[in-house]
Amino acid sequence: MQRISVILVIQLIIMAELITAQNHNRQSFPEMEHNDSRRMIRVPDIDGYITIKGDFHSHTVFSDGTVWADNRIEEAWTDGLDAIAITDHYEYRPHKDYMKEDYNAAFQIATKRAAEKNIILVHGVEITKKMPPGHFNALFVQDADVPELADTSRQAFLVAVGKFHNQGAFIIWNHPGWAAQQKDTVKWFDVHQQILEKGWLNGIEVFNYSEWYPIALEWALTKNLAPFANSDAHDPIATTYNTAGDFIRPMTLIFAEERSEKGIHDAMMGKRTVAWFNGHLAGSEILLGQLFDKSLVIRPVYNANGKTTCEVRNDTDFSFVLKGISDAWKGESNITSQSSATFTVRDDVKSIRVEVSNWHTGMKNNLVREIKL
Amino acid sequence: MQRISVILVIQLIIMAELITAQNHNRQSFPEMEHNDSRRMIRVPDIDGYITIKGDFHSHTVFSDGTVWADNRIEEAWTDGLDAIAITDHYEYRPHKDYMKEDYNAAFQIATKRAAEKNIILVHGVEITKKMPPGHFNALFVQDADVPELADTSRQAFLVAVGKFHNQGAFIIWNHPGWAAQQKDTVKWFDVHQQILEKGWLNGIEVFNYSEWYPIALEWALTKNLAPFANSDAHDPIATTYNTAGDFIRPMTLIFAEERSEKGIHDAMMGKRTVAWFNGHLAGSEILLGQLFDKSLVIRPVYNANGKTTCEVRNDTDFSFVLKGISDAWKGESNITSQSSATFTVRDDVKSIRVEVSNWHTGMKNNLVREIKL
Amino acid sequence: MQRISVILVIQLIIMAELITAQNHNRQSFPEMEHNDSRRMIRVPDIDGYITIKGDFHSHTVFSDGTVWADNRIEEAWTDGLDAIAITDHYEYRPHKDYMKEDYNAAFQIATKRAAEKNIILVHGVEITKKMPPGHFNALFVQDADVPELADTSRQAFLVAVGKFHNQGAFIIWNHPGWAAQQKDTVKWFDVHQQILEKGWLNGIEVFNYSEWYPIALEWALTKNLAPFANSDAHDPIATTYNTAGDFIRPMTLIFAEERSEKGIHDAMMGKRTVAWFNGHLAGSEILLGQLFDKSLVIRPVYNANGKTTCEVRNDTDFSFVLKGISDAWKGESNITSQSSATFTVRDDVKSIRVEVSNWHTGMKNNLVREIKL
Amino acid sequence: MQRISVILVIQLIIMAELITAQNHNRQSFPEMEHNDSRRMIRVPDIDGYITIKGDFHSHTVFSDGTVWADNRIEEAWTDGLDAIAITDHYEYRPHKDYMKEDYNAAFQIATKRAAEKNIILVHGVEITKKMPPGHFNALFVQDADVPELADTSRQAFLVAVGKFHNQGAFIIWNHPGWAAQQKDTVKWFDVHQQILEKGWLNGIEVFNYSEWYPIALEWALTKNLAPFANSDAHDPIATTYNTAGDFIRPMTLIFAEERSEKGIHDAMMGKRTVAWFNGHLAGSEILLGQLFDKSLVIRPVYNANGKTTCEVRNDTDFSFVLKGISDAWKGESNITSQSSATFTVRDDVKSIRVEVSNWHTGMKNNLVREIKL
Repeated sequence: MQRISVILVIQLIIMAELITAQNHNRQSFPEMEHNDSRRMIRVPDIDGYITIKGDFHSHTVFSDGTVWADNRIEEAWTDGLDAIAITDHYEYRPHKDYMKEDYNAAFQIATKRAAEKNIILVHGVEITKKMPPGHFNALFVQDADVPELADTSRQAFLVAVGKFHNQGAFIIWNHPGWAAQQKDTVKWFDVHQQILEKGWLNGIEVFNYSEWYPIALEWALTKNLAPFANSDAHDPIATTYNTAGDFIRPMTLIFAEERSEKGIHDAMMGKRTVAWFNGHLAGSEILLGQLFDKSLVIRPVYNANGKTTCEVRNDTDFSFVLKGISDAWKGESNITSQSSATFTVRDDVKSIRVEVSNWHTGMKNNLVREIKL
Repeated sequence: MQRISVILVIQLIIMAELITAQNHNRQSFPEMEHNDSRRMIRVPDIDGYITIKGDFHSHTVFSDGTVWADNRIEEAWTDGLDAIAITDHYEYRPHKDYMKEDYNAAFQIATKRAAEKNIILVHGVEITKKMPPGHFNALFVQDADVPELADTSRQAFLVAVGKFHNQGAFIIWNHPGWAAQQKDTVKWFDVHQQILEKGWLNGIEVFNYSEWYPIALEWALTKNLAPFANSDAHDPIATTYNTAGDFIRPMTLIFAEERSEKGIHDAMMGKRTVAWFNGHLAGSEILLGQLFDKSLVIRPVYNANGKTTCEVRNDTDFSFVLKGISDAWKGESNITSQSSATFTVRDDVKSIRVEVSNWHTGMKNNLVREIKL
Repeated sequence: MQRISVILVIQLIIMAELITAQNHNRQSFPEMEHNDSRRMIRVPDIDGYITIKGDFHSHTVFSDGTVWADNRIEEAWTDGLDAIAITDHYEYRPHKDYMKEDYNAAFQIATKRAAEKNIILVHGVEITKKMPPGHFNALFVQDADVPELADTSRQAFLVAVGKFHNQGAFIIWNHPGWAAQQKDTVKWFDVHQQILEKGWLNGIEVFNYSEWYPIALEWALTKNLAPFANSDAHDPIATTYNTAGDFIRPMTLIFAEERSEKGIHDAMMGKRTVAWFNGHLAGSEILLGQLFDKSLVIRPVYNANGKTTCEVRNDTDFSFVLKGISDAWKGESNITSQSSATFTVRDDVKSIRVEVSNWHTGMKNNLVREIKL
Repeated sequence: MQRISVILVIQLIIMAELITAQNHNRQSFPEMEHNDSRRMIRVPDIDGYITIKGDFHSHTVFSDGTVWADNRIEEAWTDGLDAIAITDHYEYRPHKDYMKEDYNAAFQIATKRAAEKNIILVHGVEITKKMPPGHFNALFVQDADVPELADTSRQAFLVAVGKFHNQGAFIIWNHPGWAAQQKDTVKWFDVHQQILEKGWLNGIEVFNYSEWYPIALEWALTKNLAPFANSDAHDPIATTYNTAGDFIRPMTLIFAEERSEKGIHDAMMGKRTVAWFNGHLAGSEILLGQLFDKSLVIRPVYNANGKTTCEVRNDTDFSFVLKGISDAWKGESNITSQSSATFTVRDDVKSIRVEVSNWHTGMKNNLVREIKL
């Protein structure tokens, strides 16, 4: 038995040596590596539609962006998006000395990664002119290689937009309030009226990068354009935005009959979009109202002295800056995805009326909603 | 006076309207934007040399990386580095269908941004062969366009290394313990001996990406090679590493006579480098000892009952896992850049002896240092 | 008009002066202040019951804790709990030289704050003896002032427990595996059997502070005891736990017919509790199974090549370490409250079987669940 | 040999069982526990003095605070302070029904912990009257039990202050701009003039909790009072302040000849104090100037085209909002403890002049300093 123990000890020593030897070869620090799990974005569906999260304006090294096309897919996956468009432009190609010219290259490259990651990749292109008319995205194009893109004249603009329209494209006016193009004004020019009347203009960015244009929401609602919030990312998302804390990147919510390219196309054409950025929502009263109703759950939790305390549970990643505007409750409450709220009303109160000051239904209007208790 | 007040009120209203009108046009959220300030890395200089922080292994879209060359400069600036090398390879160019062929392109592009940002850009190239010999970086090359790079044979490898050596290059063996090339072993092959003996091999990565190879440190110290810690980044640094919290990217510390390309070159040739990664340092006992002495300040702060309590202040971003190994103090202490430490010794103690278990002076050895009180 | 402008300017200057003057008096930095919003904890209700979140073991300055009784209510509110018990002990009162003796004081003090904050405060006391029997909590006591508490004998223990039982109390064995009392063992002693057989023992901590005792879960399930996870906090919660990041404090989930003290009491007596700590759940297979079914929503999102990709949405703050154990899916997936997951199965697969390795249904068993697709 | 292997395997199984059995008993999650390391605060010493970090206003359960006296020591240690005062008041004792009356109790309790943790505990008391005169701290008292404290009249105030003065105390006027006592004004009343002229008033809080009073700094500088920044904490520090990120609690810097109670006393009497709060410093131009010179290290790092780029290294935890006010450099720069800065000047520039807008040398003045290059 003693001999056996000796052998046992020797074997254990050898085993330990082996483990040690291995450590001398290679030691990994997986905690240093970027966690590539997919962010879960909590947004409710609304009746009849599923809610799709997308960013329809981004760039790659094929225009003046600084990332390869695949990265836009990886970022979309990580950030919890369902769909993106890569929208390089060909009027301005600062990298052209180093890259072959191919207007459809970014789309072709990213298509494979998009399939692997289950991201819906919309084929897009940006038409980049001086103001007026400014910059426009054409989404769902068949072929981005339209020669008029290389021509910076307004006439070329109209021909290009017309050609993309004939390809079935959805056309968005990008960053209408960009200070580099409209320093002191945000004007609706004749050329915008012209393409609107031709039926060529379908959407407008009410938010781009880190800027929001309330007047563009007013135009969206009065001229029947779909509102968008897009990143217009040129650099990696991680060095475009401050991603510290509970960052949710700007996105456009699409209310679609199905999670597919067709579903997105039809929803955009039906103007069923809402812009979401920095804790704000911007869109029609109807869509915001439906989102609101699906987002908050109110339940009475406590009764005392003829009063009821209600707990507000937020089942989403939306934020709510609520202000009571009925006599029943005149308080204020700030509800985030991490914190709940409570409010107290008389036992006989059946509903309260609130204004949601970070949910925009017009240039000067916020959502007002009745909450049943 | 009353009329004036009325006009005053009107003017104030107009002013308010103007402010409001402006808000309807455009509202910025600067807090959403990525903060592009430069990280300050605290490392001490040592006697006679200034300490330069560099990463000498990275990729761009010109090989199989996913970022434009300028991004490597921007990242270096943000991350507090002084110097980088872009080291694309030409044996493997998955993007070649979309990009013109130019082995020096990334260097040429990034040179301009490097000057603007005061980052020293070292002209580099990676020689990428099967193991043996594996992958090698040539730094300080004159022209990366050496036809043998396109040939994957070992003979071509030797010709290419020889040519770069003749250009004055500094040659590093990259990730010698990479599992994809040496799954169960980390061997020093004949070809490595061959280039060592020719005087062509100057450095070795003891750390690459998120892996550390203790055996490579042993080789560095016994075969007179400069040890390196490099990122080998292909993606943006922000999606390569987990940058949450107080992240410091892996880097090579260079002890140079001046902050210049020449200073770096001469320091590398003099083997005055230390690898820094994930809170660990790896290098020669002499260099680590000098860094240690410049990093910690000990001062007695409290006397009672014949005992002295000393406060240890860490003036650097290094971490120290200390273990007392003299009779005077046998405790353990973990000092980070954010937290200080205290220890108590008898009043008559003049020094203590510590082992620093995360400062590596060999495959199995850690720095041992006398601390004067 | 010119004169008016002058006056206007003067008035504006005065106004500015006033604003400035005010700033010279007092300037606030509200961003420095602790945010006292209430954390929202997402846990589903199960059929027939609402889920109540509680911590039923904590101390104040009235025993050896370091906070005033009100603080326990404030913390419960901030941390999103519904209910707590303060359970000071009277065998060990290190602050007795400074405080009047009153076994019910902490409860009396905190009752007022609990009502204001809508926290259900359960009247409790800890019976603190050497092992065996160890420490026990009596919850729902009428009067904690039982003279046998001051006596440390086992006989006094039995009398005290009997008296509290007769008051209608619910008795919990605390930290049965605490190393200070059972260094190398976790034994069920005769005295535990004795009080179990008398019907005096109702629950057991399977988790206390930062320790989990799998064997205690086995006892809970085989001896019909309600399992608990309690903090046993002595210091402020914020200096007891590492609250960085998305901290959720340990808690006991109670499945009650109503949110009230009676609801909690009846649920505990019915053994409808689950322990939740550090991402783990511990409890009966039935309760864990019901929680699981209410927590995850699976929906097919993508079809290609005869395969369906499903998205897993986690509507809760639970974490899931899933392992597929049917042929249909043999993968692994880690789902947190922040990240979703996807998995791909053949189109004809109707369900998969998973093991949830961080949901414990026994000392050696984890929840196994069928997921319908 | 085969038999041995069998036995070996059996023994390994037993060993594994033992390990498993232990896991069934008890499993720890140390990552859940609060990290109680000591924060290192980087502040330079100035010529002739060491810099001591203190908070000289805090409460415990003995007045209307909510923590035990020991906690104030633990917090001071964790937060990197050298010294604190506990300053309970006896006019307002809401916990008096539960606690014995002893004006010196908190000091006596905390003295032991202070010695263990090497924190200098100053014996203090708060004199709490209506405005005028308001609230005052007496530090370095011999015995806090002065009967006049129980009397709220102004006459009693004067007697109490006189008695403490005769004990050798240092008297501070607390939160002179507290809105609860001076809603729309911050006045210097006759009674303040009276105690100033008697030589009884030695210091003034220019910052309290989260409020800063610029006018109080003006008074400090013109009436020869030492300026203070104190927390006035009633709750745990962790639930008083927003401690997320790189929180540094408000503190008073004391420039002392030695780290001792005597050193602190003499420095306060010499008016060698500076208030530090929320990234701001407030104090005399002389002290702030000396701190500035010891904090920043400027070195030229890059020359090109007749211009020199200088790197600014911040060796402290101070922040600097710099504005160039000489022709040589008119830029702006924001330097924190985490980020460095660079600026570029002509090669022949020997110095620049900057204003530091967050370093206050008066009610309306900021530090202006010449930086030698």
